[in-house]
Amino acid sequence: MNSSAPPAPDDRAAATRLSILEVAEGLFRSLGYQKTTVADIARELGMSPANVYRFFPSKSAINEAIAARLLEGITQELEAIAARPGPAAERLRAMLRLLHARHLALFFRERRMHDMVTAAMSEHWGVIAAFIARIEAAMARVLAEGAARGEFAPHDPAVAARLLKQATLAWTHPVLIADALGKRAMDEARMAGELDEMLDLLLRGLRPNTDD
Amino acid sequence: MNSSAPPAPDDRAAATRLSILEVAEGLFRSLGYQKTTVADIARELGMSPANVYRFFPSKSAINEAIAARLLEGITQELEAIAARPGPAAERLRAMLRLLHARHLALFFRERRMHDMVTAAMSEHWGVIAAFIARIEAAMARVLAEGAARGEFAPHDPAVAARLLKQATLAWTHPVLIADALGKRAMDEARMAGELDEMLDLLLRGLRPNTDD
Repeated sequence: MNSSAPPAPDDRAAATRLSILEVAEGLFRSLGYQKTTVADIARELGMSPANVYRFFPSKSAINEAIAARLLEGITQELEAIAARPGPAAERLRAMLRLLHARHLALFFRERRMHDMVTAAMSEHWGVIAAFIARIEAAMARVLAEGAARGEFAPHDPAVAARLLKQATLAWTHPVLIADALGKRAMDEARMAGELDEMLDLLLRGLRPNTDD
Repeated sequence: MNSSAPPAPDDRAAATRLSILEVAEGLFRSLGYQKTTVADIARELGMSPANVYRFFPSKSAINEAIAARLLEGITQELEAIAARPGPAAERLRAMLRLLHARHLALFFRERRMHDMVTAAMSEHWGVIAAFIARIEAAMARVLAEGAARGEFAPHDPAVAARLLKQATLAWTHPVLIADALGKRAMDEARMAGELDEMLDLLLRGLRPNTDD
């Protein structure tokens, strides 16, 4: 096959889908999710709204695909940390710190993105649930490795992964981050310091103990 | 002094305040917080609204006093557990289970109370903050006792108390309880089971370790 052959129809469709997502994400960031219409997205791409609707049935479906792409990026960063060599405890700490940092950026530094993510959380819980499941699976792999090496006491890695996620919700859940920065008047440095204290306690809880 | 002497003006004022709170709480439970007016409360007491306003400047102030009274009850139950004899770990477990059970009842079994508590959380954060501070102080006393007896490794009890509270927010924060029962389709028995798993991990983390 000649590499300069015209792209197959599937490739062209994928490229158009990608352009729609990139233009839509740019508009959501500049105008805001609520104010952007499918007509705005179509105009920016030089196509008709009907053509955009051939690829995505609604603005909400475009948002779902953008959220999935954004969470895919975070998931890949976390999976790369999970696959590193070195102590399991250090990798888990790095993963939960990264998760906190990315959530902080998503919900609080980029105000325009906030609406988009909030809409995804209420309309597309499936995308969020899949993201949580993949993060928990990556943590469970590191936990199982740590137990196999004797770094941690024997335990159920799937249960422990869920507990690590639940125990650190104050640093990843948008409502709780908002409470901390608002009502509890925390600053970001103190929040990160408290997350480290929490991780110290949780990782101590996973260590083998002479009583076991 | 004769015990049948008429009550002092301060006692009478305190009794009137208490009647207002009891009647208001009854109406909030039956009609709902939003639908109850100060005029409804006054009518039920056979007094004028102006008289109610002599004691409380607004319906919101009545709600604040009811929330404080309700949280006072929970605080006293928790302080009673903290003051018990026996292993510190068991008392901390009992305290956090009770806190979960009371929050579940408050937010989900008594639908009418939900509005009242939500209003208190947004309008009277001071009352909630004072409640959290007293719970943390009670847990810190148990933690310090546990460390003094060698049941726990040496640690800062105030920090550890805050971490226990943060790690169990999924079982006490109204938004997170709603997520668990709604989006994650948990039932109450499974939620209680997961809380126990979390407490196992946290209490293991507090134990003295041969490495220390």
